[in-house]
Amino acid sequence: MIENLFWIGFVGAFLALGFAIVQARKVLKFPEGTEQMQKIAISIRKGANAYLKRQYLTVFLIFIIVFLLLLGLAYIGLLDNWYIPFAFLTGGVYSALSGFIGMKIATNSNSRTANAAHESLDKGLNVAFSSGTVMGFTVVGLGLLDISVWFHILKYYAGYDAPQIAQTMVMFGMGASFMALFARVGGGIFTKAADVGADLVGKVESGIPEDDPRNPATIADNVGDNVGDVAGMGADLYESYVGSILATFALGASAYAADGMAWRSMLLPLAVAVIGVFCSLLGSFLIRTQEHADQRSLLMTLRKGTYFSALLAAIVSAPVTFLLMGSFGPYISILAGLIAGCAIGFFTEYFTSDTYKPTQDLAASTETGAATTIIGGLSLGMKSTAAPILITALAIIVAFLSAGGSLNTANEALYEQSFAKGLYGIGIAAVGMLSTLGITLATDAYGPVADNAGGIAQMSGLGEDVRNRTDALDSLGNTTAATGKGFAIGSAALTALALLVSYVDVVKAKAAVMNLSLTNPAVLVGIFVGAMLTFLFAAATMSGVQRAAQSIVVEVRRQFKEIHGILEGKADPDYATCVDLCTRGALKEMVKPSLMAIVVPILTGLLLGPEAVIGLLGGVTVTGFTLAVFMSNAGGAWDNAKKYIESGNHGGKGSEQHKAAVIGDTVGDPFKDTAGPSLNILIKLCSTVSIVFASLVIQYNLIALLGK
Amino acid sequence: MIENLFWIGFVGAFLALGFAIVQARKVLKFPEGTEQMQKIAISIRKGANAYLKRQYLTVFLIFIIVFLLLLGLAYIGLLDNWYIPFAFLTGGVYSALSGFIGMKIATNSNSRTANAAHESLDKGLNVAFSSGTVMGFTVVGLGLLDISVWFHILKYYAGYDAPQIAQTMVMFGMGASFMALFARVGGGIFTKAADVGADLVGKVESGIPEDDPRNPATIADNVGDNVGDVAGMGADLYESYVGSILATFALGASAYAADGMAWRSMLLPLAVAVIGVFCSLLGSFLIRTQEHADQRSLLMTLRKGTYFSALLAAIVSAPVTFLLMGSFGPYISILAGLIAGCAIGFFTEYFTSDTYKPTQDLAASTETGAATTIIGGLSLGMKSTAAPILITALAIIVAFLSAGGSLNTANEALYEQSFAKGLYGIGIAAVGMLSTLGITLATDAYGPVADNAGGIAQMSGLGEDVRNRTDALDSLGNTTAATGKGFAIGSAALTALALLVSYVDVVKAKAAVMNLSLTNPAVLVGIFVGAMLTFLFAAATMSGVQRAAQSIVVEVRRQFKEIHGILEGKADPDYATCVDLCTRGALKEMVKPSLMAIVVPILTGLLLGPEAVIGLLGGVTVTGFTLAVFMSNAGGAWDNAKKYIESGNHGGKGSEQHKAAVIGDTVGDPFKDTAGPSLNILIKLCSTVSIVFASLVIQYNLIALLGK
Repeated sequence: MIENLFWIGFVGAFLALGFAIVQARKVLKFPEGTEQMQKIAISIRKGANAYLKRQYLTVFLIFIIVFLLLLGLAYIGLLDNWYIPFAFLTGGVYSALSGFIGMKIATNSNSRTANAAHESLDKGLNVAFSSGTVMGFTVVGLGLLDISVWFHILKYYAGYDAPQIAQTMVMFGMGASFMALFARVGGGIFTKAADVGADLVGKVESGIPEDDPRNPATIADNVGDNVGDVAGMGADLYESYVGSILATFALGASAYAADGMAWRSMLLPLAVAVIGVFCSLLGSFLIRTQEHADQRSLLMTLRKGTYFSALLAAIVSAPVTFLLMGSFGPYISILAGLIAGCAIGFFTEYFTSDTYKPTQDLAASTETGAATTIIGGLSLGMKSTAAPILITALAIIVAFLSAGGSLNTANEALYEQSFAKGLYGIGIAAVGMLSTLGITLATDAYGPVADNAGGIAQMSGLGEDVRNRTDALDSLGNTTAATGKGFAIGSAALTALALLVSYVDVVKAKAAVMNLSLTNPAVLVGIFVGAMLTFLFAAATMSGVQRAAQSIVVEVRRQFKEIHGILEGKADPDYATCVDLCTRGALKEMVKPSLMAIVVPILTGLLLGPEAVIGLLGGVTVTGFTLAVFMSNAGGAWDNAKKYIESGNHGGKGSEQHKAAVIGDTVGDPFKDTAGPSLNILIKLCSTVSIVFASLVIQYNLIALLGK
Repeated sequence: MIENLFWIGFVGAFLALGFAIVQARKVLKFPEGTEQMQKIAISIRKGANAYLKRQYLTVFLIFIIVFLLLLGLAYIGLLDNWYIPFAFLTGGVYSALSGFIGMKIATNSNSRTANAAHESLDKGLNVAFSSGTVMGFTVVGLGLLDISVWFHILKYYAGYDAPQIAQTMVMFGMGASFMALFARVGGGIFTKAADVGADLVGKVESGIPEDDPRNPATIADNVGDNVGDVAGMGADLYESYVGSILATFALGASAYAADGMAWRSMLLPLAVAVIGVFCSLLGSFLIRTQEHADQRSLLMTLRKGTYFSALLAAIVSAPVTFLLMGSFGPYISILAGLIAGCAIGFFTEYFTSDTYKPTQDLAASTETGAATTIIGGLSLGMKSTAAPILITALAIIVAFLSAGGSLNTANEALYEQSFAKGLYGIGIAAVGMLSTLGITLATDAYGPVADNAGGIAQMSGLGEDVRNRTDALDSLGNTTAATGKGFAIGSAALTALALLVSYVDVVKAKAAVMNLSLTNPAVLVGIFVGAMLTFLFAAATMSGVQRAAQSIVVEVRRQFKEIHGILEGKADPDYATCVDLCTRGALKEMVKPSLMAIVVPILTGLLLGPEAVIGLLGGVTVTGFTLAVFMSNAGGAWDNAKKYIESGNHGGKGSEQHKAAVIGDTVGDPFKDTAGPSLNILIKLCSTVSIVFASLVIQYNLIALLGK
């Protein structure tokens, strides 16, 4: 029986987690380097652990409140079952765990990477990339584990049928999304507050180089890379991965129930994910075989690894899809997802890498000062939204049509009948995009490790050549990360659409009539509110960074003034205070934007009913996606334009042009590392929150109560 | 008979135009000042005329192409009638005329204002404000004239009934919108290229003050105020005014046809507009009575004038609405529009005036440099979107419900029956908002005149006190203009919704079935494309400014280098070359973004059918509105934060903080004067283009052709 084959999820989970353990052991065997290096690494580790502990404590309290709220809803019968509150907790715990483990290994790999890079570039890559694979496979493994455990509980303990399991599990994404949002926003604020604060006083005012041990904020800056770029990213991608599978469960169960193929349609996304684990694993072996290579060939190796995995996954998925679904239709959808992910990745690279014209032009705009640099970056970011949107739009249409959907509304019977199957295609496309997450995330996650290694090399005086090697690894990471970002962004849009449709299914199953037409004022107002939420959220995260950074600026200035001899290297700065300030700032600033994502959809629903909520989800998805691409790419381009100038173009380091580029980069910091990536989570959190609170909104909205 | 009462449109038109002529004569009687002042005024006038002539020539060629295209469509039966191409032309001509007359009077009032300000502050206000009323009443008068002429042609010559007239006339907005977009984008690029170029080399590099005659770009800068802020704004608001009335015609004719009240529902918006002309006229007399007042009491006077007009219009509209429609329902909609306009205006002022906390905080963020100034302004702008969106959302709901609509979709019969009437409420709310445009536009349009007067005072060495007075008038204008902007932005959103619904009506009348649900992938993809179009358009206008400004920077640097003695005041700079460069730059850069607004909706329709077009219109409306508010307010706040510092706060002029604020202001220039206001037009142009090309898209779209 097909429905008994879901144990393959456990196979995938254990394979991924096992591989992560093997890789972690391998990394930990490398030596940590000199005593000075170990000392710095310990400071970073301590700071990161302290932050994460306090972050998890804060989030834990909020989770408990929401958990109690959910229990209350379940008690008064406004929640489908009692499993949801508990699944909310496990989703949060697993998401947090993904971030925690990733950070744990990253903070143990940074000095090891620096030490290995002391020997050779490819040794450095080996350590850093292995640390990345630990994170990549942990995320994937924990995701499959969570899904498989709950699936089997609901099926064998609760005795649910396919639609019941699917409808329940789609709500399980909320915990993961909620945790991910806190991790991304909090970590993003921490890392950028430290970065901006360190740069503004250290680099700009006092003229000391980056990662200089004399800068009191430098440890905080390195801690930030770990809690933001690593722990935040881990929680984020855990959420994306699980979200795409669960949304496809829901769409499959509703589309294929009539054909008796509900189980099969649910097994397919799981099977594709497990295939992805195998292929990523094989692909990552490809990367390990290189010796004594230069930067260019290392990039080729990394690319070979990811493309090989994607291609293999594409090939193996074909017969599996045919076997399960009896047609190649959904397979084309998977392919559309995979190709769209790669294409978005390419355009991300095109707009943000200094080997292409847009970023080179941006670097040239520093010639006329900071203002034109900012205008140039903003318009570059806005322009760069076109390709991802057109690619996503094409992927949506292709995935929908090839999975059996019809866009010809004139033929109403055909349209209605094929509609759900087409939507299933959109869900499975997102799963396809994320199937090889194990390896794409690894190529993304090793970047911050290399960045940290560079900081340690600098602070412990390891010499210019080590720093150059870690810089090369870092910039290599930026390039490969573009592909990873493409997958994350594209899958967010597709998953959000899948969740939006799931919400409609949920509401339709409970409420009588709904008018989802764009001409319905409730829907339109909802779209407006969705756009507003997106902008408010982005503004809140950006001001959060700014306020936290301002406190660092004040503190660093104070230390330079009050602790005599810091700038001459005769006295040690007080690193811990800066770490503590960042921690407090980030925790304080992360709460407001994160709560918005829960409060606004519920409030909109209570005031204007489920139709407005659907409008809101549409508005958040479209505006959030566009704004995320705009902010991420503008920030990436400013960053690389600065590096391009630093490598000797347009006057090089220290020139007026360089100063303008640094201003651009500083503006871009909260864009690309705080607001931009958080928006992807916001989109999905709004959807899952709306699904969980659907019964409440349906029964107690003002429109229904007033009968208006 | 009610339908014979439409001659009141002529009464309103002639009253407005007559008053404009009287005011113009009054202004022209004032003396132009010294020979030096006249010389400068003539240079500005010449430059502005030369630009406008070339702009109109370029636009004329494009208009002819579109006109021929429309004739072709009419010939093969894809256009409802032969009037549309001709109405497209008249709409363009009237819109252009509005801008031209406004600019003509403005360029003749600038030196007169400077001369009058030489005597006293209130004399200066008198001349500048009178020049503003000429523009305000010209726009309103021409708008009513165009509508009335075409209405009577269609009714008495063509013999159309109410729905036919309404369906035809809603397409007439396209010409006005198209012209307005060119005028706003072209003028906006001209004015900001000159401004940015003059500032970057003059103020920042060479350290000479604003409007210094030694700066070769200074005449271009003053020309820019006239072709952008005056001619562009005139064409823009002509379009808004006419668009809101025509959209309400269409909604009324379709909502009230069954009740036999179609004519009445069409007469109401016209009557409200005519009432608005009377009230604006009375209100403007209130402003003329003041003598020898200080700045604060002048502001009070201006406020008194606008609020008196709005209040009076609100009072008189009540019995008129009841008489025409037999209920006060639509009157509440009108009130909702008026109040929403005032409320958005208040929040615009709150976020952009230095008397409130947001802009003061922004000024404080200059303490940590340009990067935090930029981040602060961007997040201020994003935050400021919340109030206008919530107010507009509330206005939509109130206008819809009070005009008889129901949001309770559970009661399907009630919902369907009341739906169209509710939508009519949204349309009439926009008309209410714009009814007193005569006076609100006057308070907006006198600002650039005062700005120019300041430039002339500076260049002809009239002394510090005259400049201080014109600066006071200018900053007074910024404050009152906030209210005007509130009306323009709010009405754009409401009119766009009305047009979106009209498009749906048009398509439904022609095509069989449509699924406008948000879950339809075609609709969703359309929304994505709409968001993309908005971002691309904003990017194109911003890069346009940047490229044109860069050419000015190069030219000013060249003149400083090659013409010896400029900086010492011994040699005259070559002003004409800068004007010419701006002209050529603006004309070159305005074409691409303007054509996007026509090509993208048609192409989307041809590929994915009318459902995707409706999605696109929804996406453009919501994203465009949000982005417009964000950009306008961020730009306004940067501008005023700079002025706040210049008035002695945070280090004052010449400090590091001031330099950071200048960078913010320069980034804000294309935000608030090019991209922001153009977006309002883009929204409506997309709608009217879609309506005009509806038949083409319905018959020849790929989805229908493939039967997919």
